[in-house]
Amino acid sequence: MSKEITSREQDYSQWYNDLVIKGDLADYSAVRGCMVIKPYGFALWENMRDQLDSMFKDTGHVNAYFPLFVPKSLFEAEEKNAEGFAKECAIVTHYRLKGDPEKKGKLIVDPEAKLEEELVVRPTSEAIIWNTYKTWIQSYRDLPVLVNQWANVVRWEMRTRLFLRTAEFLWQEGHTAHATSQEAIEEAEKMLNVYAEFVENWMALPVIKGVKTPNERFAGALDTYCIEALMQDGKALQAGTSHFLGQNFAKAFDVQFLTKENKQEYVWATSWGVSTRLIGALVMAHSDDEGLILPPRIAPLQVVVVPIYKGEEQKALIDEKVKALFRELKLSGIRVKYDDSDNVRPGWKFAEYEKKGVPVRIAIGARDIENNTVEIARRDTREKTSVSMDGLPVRIVNLLEEIQQDMFERAKQFRDEYITPADNWDEFVELLGKKGGFIAAHWDGTGETEDKIKELTKATIRCIPLNNEKEEGVCILTGKPSMQRVLFAQAY
Amino acid sequence: MSKEITSREQDYSQWYNDLVIKGDLADYSAVRGCMVIKPYGFALWENMRDQLDSMFKDTGHVNAYFPLFVPKSLFEAEEKNAEGFAKECAIVTHYRLKGDPEKKGKLIVDPEAKLEEELVVRPTSEAIIWNTYKTWIQSYRDLPVLVNQWANVVRWEMRTRLFLRTAEFLWQEGHTAHATSQEAIEEAEKMLNVYAEFVENWMALPVIKGVKTPNERFAGALDTYCIEALMQDGKALQAGTSHFLGQNFAKAFDVQFLTKENKQEYVWATSWGVSTRLIGALVMAHSDDEGLILPPRIAPLQVVVVPIYKGEEQKALIDEKVKALFRELKLSGIRVKYDDSDNVRPGWKFAEYEKKGVPVRIAIGARDIENNTVEIARRDTREKTSVSMDGLPVRIVNLLEEIQQDMFERAKQFRDEYITPADNWDEFVELLGKKGGFIAAHWDGTGETEDKIKELTKATIRCIPLNNEKEEGVCILTGKPSMQRVLFAQAY
Repeated sequence: MSKEITSREQDYSQWYNDLVIKGDLADYSAVRGCMVIKPYGFALWENMRDQLDSMFKDTGHVNAYFPLFVPKSLFEAEEKNAEGFAKECAIVTHYRLKGDPEKKGKLIVDPEAKLEEELVVRPTSEAIIWNTYKTWIQSYRDLPVLVNQWANVVRWEMRTRLFLRTAEFLWQEGHTAHATSQEAIEEAEKMLNVYAEFVENWMALPVIKGVKTPNERFAGALDTYCIEALMQDGKALQAGTSHFLGQNFAKAFDVQFLTKENKQEYVWATSWGVSTRLIGALVMAHSDDEGLILPPRIAPLQVVVVPIYKGEEQKALIDEKVKALFRELKLSGIRVKYDDSDNVRPGWKFAEYEKKGVPVRIAIGARDIENNTVEIARRDTREKTSVSMDGLPVRIVNLLEEIQQDMFERAKQFRDEYITPADNWDEFVELLGKKGGFIAAHWDGTGETEDKIKELTKATIRCIPLNNEKEEGVCILTGKPSMQRVLFAQAY
Repeated sequence: MSKEITSREQDYSQWYNDLVIKGDLADYSAVRGCMVIKPYGFALWENMRDQLDSMFKDTGHVNAYFPLFVPKSLFEAEEKNAEGFAKECAIVTHYRLKGDPEKKGKLIVDPEAKLEEELVVRPTSEAIIWNTYKTWIQSYRDLPVLVNQWANVVRWEMRTRLFLRTAEFLWQEGHTAHATSQEAIEEAEKMLNVYAEFVENWMALPVIKGVKTPNERFAGALDTYCIEALMQDGKALQAGTSHFLGQNFAKAFDVQFLTKENKQEYVWATSWGVSTRLIGALVMAHSDDEGLILPPRIAPLQVVVVPIYKGEEQKALIDEKVKALFRELKLSGIRVKYDDSDNVRPGWKFAEYEKKGVPVRIAIGARDIENNTVEIARRDTREKTSVSMDGLPVRIVNLLEEIQQDMFERAKQFRDEYITPADNWDEFVELLGKKGGFIAAHWDGTGETEDKIKELTKATIRCIPLNNEKEEGVCILTGKPSMQRVLFAQAY
């Protein structure tokens, strides 16, 4: 059955789509570029969201909710931000439909219900939030403001892909306000570390922490920190960003505060976000040609139990054994399902749960009952082992943890193999064409060179790694002097 | 400080706004009719949402996510639903802004980026969801579909009020699909019971379960079940609805399934929702002229501890005592805050937490340390008691539960006093004018009479209570025969 899935070798891009759709995570919708996140995919997102939310709260943040719409006059207040998003935003111009006088039962936009001022569907919320912070912040005692929002945002992308790039997506956006530049920078770095910790420890996906070049910064930021991950096809994926916004938004929205020294100063800002795009990264980093492979810590279902039997008598014996096991697994906090549906064969179920990436499968047959054993299959390695039923819950708990670690180690090993230095242009081009991955190369520090390299190779500077080693060299394109290597890659 | 709040007697409507704004729940925004839900208000919503979500999951439902936008052609497919919402929906017509050639730094809608088909910002999601269900449902084995969505929706209301009626609001919408009419009706009733249980046991707000008259049904439903609550000003508030949609949406979107008997049949549907409007109900049902009164089970903060001291030495002694107490309260699962901020006086803090409706305040001063006591103040009754520190956590846990029950009982007593029978028109009008509340009266069963009564008195039929007693009588307006009383009220 898993042969519904195109192999990576055959067509990597189709393989990805097959995984998302046949793994039951999401599907296309009737709205251009928007997806439906199906229950299985949404359960995965809930696990990710809940973990992130608790990490945000542990670092002192609170949630709030701001309007979906941004009046055009607010949207354009911070010029760089507005310029960055103006080309791809959904705009509400009317507030009423009316019956079409020419076609019964059809509706048309009522031209009399035109808004005086158009509303932009938020592509990001800095504008509406900083316009609100103006009323929240008067004195240093009101700072810091450490607010996060879980929300949907809309960016009218022309070429969309499920999870990776959709017109509407779900995300969280933190928006913080601080009394000093130093404190805001520390906040931006702290949240980058929270993201890295989440992606590495929960999604089993190693990341490189770095800072973006000016060309790749968020529109309106002074600095954009990022975490970059590597996909199986050698392309990089930006998994999260954290921005130091300086006083740009405070100035655009006139948000000043009275310091301890009784002076009026503009507030310092950060914003940071991760989105359902992370699910795309998860899918592409770990899965194989049989389907998804989900890390146990965030998998909606960690264990599936499948009975193998002939006749009602065998079924009854298995049911009884499973009942006790099921209770114990639940008590151990494991998300487990007993699939005893009788309309499909066990082999079909095996393929189905492999496709959905359930980390552990337990099969139990009549002979297992006799021998007091079960067969355990790991999704990640596809290894099968026959083990005793005694002490099974503890074994499963440990196995899930082992799978989590192994998945991370494998991804890290792959990633590390795919960071390659290039010392001149020919090496660079050859590496990009033949091997892919991150290429560590010298660059002269100018946006022009960066643009030129992108034009010639589609590779961009993914980041300048934090704590990058200083090393003298010459730019691979221009030969001009450079003090450090930066990481290039083709990217999603 | 609490005198910032207008009294109910002086101006009930202003009292409500003061509570919401000065109680730090929400505020107006720059977008007409949209609100900002502040961190304290959002924490309240999170507690409500999480509890509801777990009740939905316990009854077999899963979450998913569907697009924010509904293409006009889908929106108009179910005619009654479309007609019901067409007059109040936000419409996206363009997908790009561009620089205003006449004003530098300003943006205008790019006329070249007009959508071929307009998109309606979802006022409710039946259309987009049933268009999706068409691909999910083929056979009886795919049924039931029990899906819920937490989302924002937009209804372009002309007169808005914080929480009660806003252009954008947060809600959940369940959308289920069933093989039989009977099963769908049972689902609609089950979810009504879930809502009633939540509102009564968690929000401490008694409700009347009933069914709407045809006039008051959800657009596109065959039956709308509802829970109705009573506010302190004698007006009713619809707190939640659950709809039996029959096969209307299945027919509009051609969703058929193969029955066990190998026949093609249309699927049966329900939808059900509650929203941030519940917060408005909560505020109006329980609060007083000093501020909010929040039920302990959903209060963001259940206990606040305030130290009263002179000098650092006393403060240190109190800090030490509180430290142990604080840990114990946390371990008992209590949401507690120690407010030892030094820039405001204890009296100011007392007023502040009363305004925010924190159920229990613990004050601890130097004499308390000597006597091994604390002062406990209940927010709901404003009673203060001096009690021993020994066994305090257990006492607090019990007190919170007692407050929860007492709040429900008080609201129920009030509600019960305000269900009054009226046997003729004059009584009805007098009751409405002088007493308010629910009026149980006979009605001839026609929409015309209902409309006429609404026109004359602004009272509507809130519901026909479930398990209503049959009783012969005559309609208060027309004198025509009636078999049962229905509940009238003026409503939010």
